[in-house]
Amino acid sequence: MAQKKVSRKTQSRKTTARSKKRVPKYVYFFGGGRAEGKTEMKNLLGGKGANLAEMTNLGLPVPAGFTITTEVCTYYYQHKRTYPPGLKENVDKALKKVERLMGARFGDEQNPLLVSVRSGARASMPGMMDTILNLGLNDKTVNGLIKQSGNPRFAYDSYRRFVQMYGDVVLDLKPKTKDDVDPFEEIIEAKKKAKGVTYDVELTAEDLKELVAEFKKAIKRETGRSFPEDPREQLWGAIGAVFGSWMNDRAIVYRKLNGIPEEWGTAVNIQAMVFGNYGEDSGTGVAFTRDPATGENIFYGEFLMNAQGEDVVAGTRTPLPILELAKKDRRSYRELLRIRKVLEAHYREMMDIEFTIQQGKLYMLQCRVGKRTAFASIRIAVDMVRQKLITQKEALMRIEPDQLNQLLRPIFDPVQKKQAVAQGRLMAKGLNAGPGAATGRVVFHADDAVTLASQGADVILVRIETSPEDIEGMSVAQGILTARGGMTSHAALVARQMGKVCVAGCDALEIDYKKREIHIAGKDNVIYEGDFISLDGTTGEVILGELETRPSEVLQVLIDKTLDPKSAPIYQMYDRIMRWADKYRRLRIRTNADQPDQSANAIAFGAEGIGLCRTEHMFFGEGKIGPMRQMILSDSVEERKAALAKLLPLQRRDFEGIFRVMNGKPITIRTIDPPLHEFLPHDDAGQREVAKDLGIPFEVVKTRVAALHEFNPMLGFRGCRLGIVYPEITEMQARAIFEAAANVKKEGVKVLPEVMIPLVGHVKELKLQEEIVRRVAREVMKETGVRFKYLVGTMIEIPRGAITADEIAGVAEFFSFGTNDLTQTTLGVSRDDAGRFLIPYVEQEIYSRDPFEAIDQVGVGFLMKHAVQNGRAVRDKLKIGICGEHGGEPSSITFCHQIGLDYVSCSPFRVPIARLAAARAAIA
Amino acid sequence: MAQKKVSRKTQSRKTTARSKKRVPKYVYFFGGGRAEGKTEMKNLLGGKGANLAEMTNLGLPVPAGFTITTEVCTYYYQHKRTYPPGLKENVDKALKKVERLMGARFGDEQNPLLVSVRSGARASMPGMMDTILNLGLNDKTVNGLIKQSGNPRFAYDSYRRFVQMYGDVVLDLKPKTKDDVDPFEEIIEAKKKAKGVTYDVELTAEDLKELVAEFKKAIKRETGRSFPEDPREQLWGAIGAVFGSWMNDRAIVYRKLNGIPEEWGTAVNIQAMVFGNYGEDSGTGVAFTRDPATGENIFYGEFLMNAQGEDVVAGTRTPLPILELAKKDRRSYRELLRIRKVLEAHYREMMDIEFTIQQGKLYMLQCRVGKRTAFASIRIAVDMVRQKLITQKEALMRIEPDQLNQLLRPIFDPVQKKQAVAQGRLMAKGLNAGPGAATGRVVFHADDAVTLASQGADVILVRIETSPEDIEGMSVAQGILTARGGMTSHAALVARQMGKVCVAGCDALEIDYKKREIHIAGKDNVIYEGDFISLDGTTGEVILGELETRPSEVLQVLIDKTLDPKSAPIYQMYDRIMRWADKYRRLRIRTNADQPDQSANAIAFGAEGIGLCRTEHMFFGEGKIGPMRQMILSDSVEERKAALAKLLPLQRRDFEGIFRVMNGKPITIRTIDPPLHEFLPHDDAGQREVAKDLGIPFEVVKTRVAALHEFNPMLGFRGCRLGIVYPEITEMQARAIFEAAANVKKEGVKVLPEVMIPLVGHVKELKLQEEIVRRVAREVMKETGVRFKYLVGTMIEIPRGAITADEIAGVAEFFSFGTNDLTQTTLGVSRDDAGRFLIPYVEQEIYSRDPFEAIDQVGVGFLMKHAVQNGRAVRDKLKIGICGEHGGEPSSITFCHQIGLDYVSCSPFRVPIARLAAARAAIA
Repeated sequence: MAQKKVSRKTQSRKTTARSKKRVPKYVYFFGGGRAEGKTEMKNLLGGKGANLAEMTNLGLPVPAGFTITTEVCTYYYQHKRTYPPGLKENVDKALKKVERLMGARFGDEQNPLLVSVRSGARASMPGMMDTILNLGLNDKTVNGLIKQSGNPRFAYDSYRRFVQMYGDVVLDLKPKTKDDVDPFEEIIEAKKKAKGVTYDVELTAEDLKELVAEFKKAIKRETGRSFPEDPREQLWGAIGAVFGSWMNDRAIVYRKLNGIPEEWGTAVNIQAMVFGNYGEDSGTGVAFTRDPATGENIFYGEFLMNAQGEDVVAGTRTPLPILELAKKDRRSYRELLRIRKVLEAHYREMMDIEFTIQQGKLYMLQCRVGKRTAFASIRIAVDMVRQKLITQKEALMRIEPDQLNQLLRPIFDPVQKKQAVAQGRLMAKGLNAGPGAATGRVVFHADDAVTLASQGADVILVRIETSPEDIEGMSVAQGILTARGGMTSHAALVARQMGKVCVAGCDALEIDYKKREIHIAGKDNVIYEGDFISLDGTTGEVILGELETRPSEVLQVLIDKTLDPKSAPIYQMYDRIMRWADKYRRLRIRTNADQPDQSANAIAFGAEGIGLCRTEHMFFGEGKIGPMRQMILSDSVEERKAALAKLLPLQRRDFEGIFRVMNGKPITIRTIDPPLHEFLPHDDAGQREVAKDLGIPFEVVKTRVAALHEFNPMLGFRGCRLGIVYPEITEMQARAIFEAAANVKKEGVKVLPEVMIPLVGHVKELKLQEEIVRRVAREVMKETGVRFKYLVGTMIEIPRGAITADEIAGVAEFFSFGTNDLTQTTLGVSRDDAGRFLIPYVEQEIYSRDPFEAIDQVGVGFLMKHAVQNGRAVRDKLKIGICGEHGGEPSSITFCHQIGLDYVSCSPFRVPIARLAAARAAIA
Repeated sequence: MAQKKVSRKTQSRKTTARSKKRVPKYVYFFGGGRAEGKTEMKNLLGGKGANLAEMTNLGLPVPAGFTITTEVCTYYYQHKRTYPPGLKENVDKALKKVERLMGARFGDEQNPLLVSVRSGARASMPGMMDTILNLGLNDKTVNGLIKQSGNPRFAYDSYRRFVQMYGDVVLDLKPKTKDDVDPFEEIIEAKKKAKGVTYDVELTAEDLKELVAEFKKAIKRETGRSFPEDPREQLWGAIGAVFGSWMNDRAIVYRKLNGIPEEWGTAVNIQAMVFGNYGEDSGTGVAFTRDPATGENIFYGEFLMNAQGEDVVAGTRTPLPILELAKKDRRSYRELLRIRKVLEAHYREMMDIEFTIQQGKLYMLQCRVGKRTAFASIRIAVDMVRQKLITQKEALMRIEPDQLNQLLRPIFDPVQKKQAVAQGRLMAKGLNAGPGAATGRVVFHADDAVTLASQGADVILVRIETSPEDIEGMSVAQGILTARGGMTSHAALVARQMGKVCVAGCDALEIDYKKREIHIAGKDNVIYEGDFISLDGTTGEVILGELETRPSEVLQVLIDKTLDPKSAPIYQMYDRIMRWADKYRRLRIRTNADQPDQSANAIAFGAEGIGLCRTEHMFFGEGKIGPMRQMILSDSVEERKAALAKLLPLQRRDFEGIFRVMNGKPITIRTIDPPLHEFLPHDDAGQREVAKDLGIPFEVVKTRVAALHEFNPMLGFRGCRLGIVYPEITEMQARAIFEAAANVKKEGVKVLPEVMIPLVGHVKELKLQEEIVRRVAREVMKETGVRFKYLVGTMIEIPRGAITADEIAGVAEFFSFGTNDLTQTTLGVSRDDAGRFLIPYVEQEIYSRDPFEAIDQVGVGFLMKHAVQNGRAVRDKLKIGICGEHGGEPSSITFCHQIGLDYVSCSPFRVPIARLAAARAAIA
């Protein structure tokens, strides 16, 4: 220990020694076609400073200036808000250069250089001090400005604005709350009243001059200090204010929310002023090199003549479309078009620019990568590949996988939706469990949904929670809305698998089945059966009334086949992205599906196999729930076997259907998993009906359901535990699978079933089940004379399974991570119950993302890595995939790629997203 | 890969080469005071063979013989049931030696050597072929025996027995089922009938000779082969039968159940016959060197004159106590006393011996470590230390920790209990949740228990399941019986903590609260309120009627103080063992207690601190449940704080009480852990009462209880999640702890509270709670002017906590493994629901032991080791303990010692067991 301490001390001494030697460069100059910085120096110069330097180097007309680095900010806070030695000299030197280039001198009474001071962090950050303009003006230099511009009103207006900005921002007189009043605005109002005018523009140069004096008095009164007349004092005050604003409350909150480290710091940009309000030959504007809403390759922007930057944004005057600039100032417009080209060619990105025209001369004040809609993002990426601006890989890295939903899901007409919200029709918000837009009439019962839908009505099925008995109703509904349950509740799972719109766990709803109405906490509206509602499954919003939806073009081509691909540009875009993605990804993509039609959809979306076929869903089809219940209510092995014998042909037929659709693509079939009570009704009426149907006394049914009650069903009698206590169930399921395989093979269909045993925690559990499966396979091959390949593997979904992966891999031919349950058990959190604390948890940043949405890589991920390494150590060809909900979530897919999985499996409608995410993971 | 294969091949060639060179010794001789084997060669010679050799070397009179090694058995099964080359020669040579020493020849018609053939595995194994006696007799050698003994009847009886045994065992004519008849017994019966006699002994020599002939005919008839007249053929037949029996069904099952590897194999012992039935100067007997029931240091055994070994066991004649032998054969008796001393001095163990006296000469036929009761085990160990036969360490290693229960728990009078069972009064069996014996009148309600107990009645509280409201009733009851719930159900936990007898989860009981009666599945008896029942909490048995119990002497000295320690020999024994244990153990022992009286008991039992003080139990005391419920039903932080303010002084008083009792011993106090709904009644009546008490509408209470319902409460809103959503609860608890600490410190009491945050899965959870605790500690120190030490740590009870132990150790000053929950989450098994599959699981040997009883070292243990290593890597002095139920289970304590924990914590009544287990772990 002693030694350790000594060595640490030595090290720290060394560091100090090193830092003494180093003399950092604190100021980076730009101007006159040359800059010391460049885009890549964003960390040091901030985004704004780096791009000003880059534009300068590109030969674009940027007013000269310089950037004080973010390192100064770091130093500032590490040294009790003082500046590093040498900074002053650095700034002076740079300022000299600016003076030289601009032909003006800072503080000169004849020909004063005025500057702007702006903050500029690595990432754009609201809450920081933004801008001080016209710095350098005082009672003397203002005369120089008058002389130069020949416009006293302009000069005093600039002066007035400067003093006000300086007072507000640097001297901290800006109102802190909405009730406070800006002292400067008060003075202006008084002045206008005194002069009998209404608008600022009506004030004369003299009025403005008086205002400046009154502003200064107010500053003295409020702060006890005089307004600094010395431009250098002004400058250092402004620099200090920028650095100071890095630690103001809003900035701190924003950084915390967006995970921006405090250590990054901000840079300060000081730049010579140019004026868009010099007269009618001046102006200012903002533009995007392409349309940020649609992505269309057109020059898009707005401008105002005789105005300063803030006027464009303020909304007091309506800016003109950029095309109009051609008429007002053709030269500047053509120059802008040229700059647009230069910037796109250079940055190979859609750029957002700010410009000012001073007396017919164009200046660039800012450029940065432009924000855009998801749709534009896709279009721009695809177009830029076509233009050979970027590579396919780059294009893929620019499209967030979830943005693909824009191409796949029906959406509401955005204008209509906005109106509806403005009208107060947004009723509640639940979990965005099934993305897309749906509108229809409220029904409360699955049967009614079926009836109404058969009459051609669009319906929204509204339930407190859904159960397997609602499946038919769900399948005919446009959307599903539930009051309870989480992102893996029955409603959510089924909806995503069906590609239905679903808002789940919307707990503001009070659903009264008897009265057939919904009350909403905090709202007066009552929604009655038959009323129209609209669900935005992408946001979780529930909106009263009907909204128009737009169907997805991709869907129409791929599945509905109602559109000609050639006439479907969005489909073409989708198709191109998917081809590129498939070229680069290493992960295979499978889907979670258990019906032939779902499987067909998934194949249309590019699924390469089924990663999870839940056999229990099959028990809810017509004619199947009866024997299933009979099986559960059996008293003896014999009775159970009799009931299973009835299920065998039904389940076999289901498998045949899926095998035919998949034709040789691998299909992972999970043996029965849920607790048995899920197959029985929990209410007296339902139980009476079951009793009647099966000819069993009601009391027996009731007692059996009660006996099946569990304190923690998630950790109860389910998964392979069922098959171990009732091996005859596993036997029947294996037989159904293999007989189906033999039957379709006779038809010439290829089959590759992978039998998956769920909830294995101990290798012996798997071994016992595997023995049954293999024995049945041998029997079926012998009986049918058909040989077929198959695998036996397991789901890794409880920690002990992951921990003992080496033992389990001795038996399992494949692993599939069931990350839903693995997350529940590893975190000790029941997803269905987490609502009460998961929101405060995410608010307090305990988990940065909902661990049921994105894999908790530290906790759950540790077990996954352990399982992959130890499993493959025993069986090096072990096939490993994931079939939990995370299999369709991009950050989780990246993780799966990194730890070496072979495939991910997700719901059919997430297959394209997974393909893209997998490609991005491979490229990254 | 290719290289790997080659190298394997080379290796296997080498092995073959090596095994060719080695010429194993297959046969070990003993006799004439010299043996080739010894005790330590048990693996090679089996237990019986090794001890025969050892006794020979000790100079004890052992008939000469030899042992065929277990390696021959292994060879036999590896080589299609053939013997290794050279074995025959080995056997012949050894047999020659025996002939020489015994002065007789195998197969000699004049002076035949007869031998016994016995199996002898490493561990004693029922199901194996046991013994063939008198081998070597045939129609010719029988005449030699007649000549030698002068007793034709003896000779033919020996011959008859041999043929019968040989036919049964070697030729496999023994009946396979109970309905089959032994062909030999049939013949004997027919003979007796024909001769008109009743007993075997009435048959004459001639009759017996006829029987031999008839037996042989039967053998020919049944097997198609003649009885082998050649003694060598007989011998090899018997050897083959011994080896063959290693693989019979019963032996296989036994091995599987007891974890005995098949590879061990059995040895075969061939030994010269001596006869206890040679006449009245002959006899046979078995003895123990001490009393195996009480452990008393007296020679204990039985014998019969003129009898063979099996007669002593068979029960046809009543054997005499060994003391009587002094009268019958004084010389042999004194010789036996000498041998007893020699054996004890040599083996330093209580031995079990078999002897035979032939014509006044004593022979030793077997010796092995004697089986004994738990009580005897303890007494013998303690006595042997006093005698300086063994060291203290050895004594500790000979006492199974659970055997200490014999010294601690009241037990039923064993004779009375046996009678009760014989009378059919055993009603049902549940989980042995709280060891000990209790008898009393059935009551169904806690209130009634209190009333009746106050009138002096002993009561047994019988509930479907218990809830915190039953605590007072439980505390006055002699025992608790529940129909539902597992080993960590409320009833079980509380009972163990209180040291109460408890049988839990006895699902055969149908309890009718209304009629106040119990029906039992499969029984006609109805048990009414007020009836006597008896609970054996050590076995889980429920017995009808009253049974006498014996109180524990140790308890009377330690806690009741009704006995003078000097007049309490059992206490003295206990005390000695505990002193030794404390000398050798490294682990500290704490207890789980949350009341002053429990804590006092635990200290009496040797607890060195409290490892788990559950604060929620405190909320159920008088006057506390009201404010607690008010807190839960609060609508706002303010209301909640008001309710908490009422709880503060109550909880503070509780802590003061415990602090005073523990006086400076560390106390780990866990902040509130259970789901809130546990504090509210679930039935309408109870809810109405709460509503009335608190002046809240019934509907509000009902709705709130419903809202608190969870699908999987084990994984729900509990543990630190409560304190994070309601920080004011943690704040109140911290304040109660620290104010109590300050108050008692003023009184001169030492305090060391360790505040433990439960259910932590993410370091930020702990951090948030830790900040509150430390802030309150600072505040209290400031307010009271008292400084005190305290720690803040966490329970590691969900996998993510263990996985991220390094992060958590950055904040936690200690870890305590909550292995109950850690097992539930790691295995994905809810203990309360496991009943339905855990029994089939243990039956199918998926888990060799119930993982809730003994730590699953592979799964849960992996996470524990990971947490210890990674936690200590960050904080090397990190204090680590365990407070799950496993903390009182010996194999788990050993594991905790091995992975380097600092302490284990268990219920007060298991503290002595833990002390012993910890010492054994350290010694091992």
